[in-house]
Amino acid sequence: MAEVGKETNARLSEILPRKDQRPEVLHEAMRYAVLGGGKRIRPVVTLAAFHAAAPEGAGREKVLDAGCAVELLHAYSLVHDDLPAMDNDALRRNRLTCHKAFGEATAILVGDALQCLAFDVMAQAGGDKAEVAIRELAQASGSLGMVGGQMLDMEGEGKHQDVQEIELIDRWKTGALITACSRLGGIFAGASDARLERLTQYGRAIGFMYQICDDILDTTATSQQLGKATRKDDKAGKLTYPGALGEKEARAMAQKRGVEAQQIIREFGKEGLYLRLLCDYLLDRIS
Amino acid sequence: MAEVGKETNARLSEILPRKDQRPEVLHEAMRYAVLGGGKRIRPVVTLAAFHAAAPEGAGREKVLDAGCAVELLHAYSLVHDDLPAMDNDALRRNRLTCHKAFGEATAILVGDALQCLAFDVMAQAGGDKAEVAIRELAQASGSLGMVGGQMLDMEGEGKHQDVQEIELIDRWKTGALITACSRLGGIFAGASDARLERLTQYGRAIGFMYQICDDILDTTATSQQLGKATRKDDKAGKLTYPGALGEKEARAMAQKRGVEAQQIIREFGKEGLYLRLLCDYLLDRIS
Repeated sequence: MAEVGKETNARLSEILPRKDQRPEVLHEAMRYAVLGGGKRIRPVVTLAAFHAAAPEGAGREKVLDAGCAVELLHAYSLVHDDLPAMDNDALRRNRLTCHKAFGEATAILVGDALQCLAFDVMAQAGGDKAEVAIRELAQASGSLGMVGGQMLDMEGEGKHQDVQEIELIDRWKTGALITACSRLGGIFAGASDARLERLTQYGRAIGFMYQICDDILDTTATSQQLGKATRKDDKAGKLTYPGALGEKEARAMAQKRGVEAQQIIREFGKEGLYLRLLCDYLLDRIS
Repeated sequence: MAEVGKETNARLSEILPRKDQRPEVLHEAMRYAVLGGGKRIRPVVTLAAFHAAAPEGAGREKVLDAGCAVELLHAYSLVHDDLPAMDNDALRRNRLTCHKAFGEATAILVGDALQCLAFDVMAQAGGDKAEVAIRELAQASGSLGMVGGQMLDMEGEGKHQDVQEIELIDRWKTGALITACSRLGGIFAGASDARLERLTQYGRAIGFMYQICDDILDTTATSQQLGKATRKDDKAGKLTYPGALGEKEARAMAQKRGVEAQQIIREFGKEGLYLRLLCDYLLDRIS
């Protein structure tokens, strides 16, 4: 995981426009927003799914680029979510959020430019698979995916904690993009429909796990550990599993999803190694 | 032009998610931002260029969809540009701007979702040309295109009126996307490199014309005529041709670009009909 994280950072640094290119402040802020750390979970999922579906590993560079495209898209969503009109956060990855460091207008444009760059990079990585790859990314991140989930998340503030609604929010807000990563790994590997279906199920299971863990950490970890403000969900009245079921039940829910993921992984045999390591890593975060 | 405008509106209405689909408010606001009028210049350019390069006109539906994708992208940029942190506009197309009607957080998400939808639609329209079509759109609208131009435009506020700088801002802020439309028409038609180069020059010429006309209208037209606030550039200290050269010289500059465009059109023979009509229409706006 650390290895893929390093590779991703190096490649993202190449992909992003240089700081000395006009408009310099915009490019500096884009680099700040993307290169300031992060676990790079999404490129890891993409590569792990690719290795599970195509153990020979031809075309790995393109898959890393596809992972970088998803990471750029994820970075844009964080910049916009942190804005005053949205979650109004001042701290992210132990540094000032983009709008706190560069101003609100620049942060809006940083998000817009990063989303655009994400599609550019995905198109180039996709080559003759560009149509499928772009549509996968777009549908996971649009109004019936990530952005829609962010809207539902805002609309849910202060409402009754309803488990079905929480599942829908989580599936769209975080799950859709992580599932797209798992599927993209398969698509780049030329996986069969059956394999793609299994990778879809894997992505869904770890996407849920990831979001539940995030919500648990918001209630249990310190701000220093996470590099951002904590206890935010409770204060904002957000709909979350720990909010609906309590921390213990939420933890059990995450572990249940982990067991589901492990069952799916077993069908990949020894090629599923990276999928398993990633699943273990995600569960470790809350144990 | 009116015909293409109607076709574009009908197709955009089909493409956009329905109002009764969750998250309903987000979808209602997306439809509000896109379907509230507008001249649909960009789809017209795309189709006119296609007709000039492929008079037989096979695949016209895909080209209309490509034009719709550009229009979705243009609509997102207007929603974000109108935000309080950016140009802070309350009126657009004789109605409240998106954030005035739906709130700031929703308007940010509307822009994000529209950009995403634009790439989805372009990928589908592009088919086996998806990689090229997506990259054309992304590069015209990113930090070295439209978004970069918006940044330079903001940075220029209150600075010395410098004609070279104005040319750069205009080329990026408006010109890049209009040029991409002209090129996309050619790409969908399978135009030769030489033809594509001519369409590029045509797009650049009318892109400049369009922006200069817009700046002139901001100083001469009434708010009712334009459906938005006027005299804004002067108040904000924006860098514009009328600001640098006066209205008369700016008008002459637009006409010079019109003559350039007409010279290029001549090389297309009678297939250049739509390119010529469009050029005449754009010049008419300020005469």
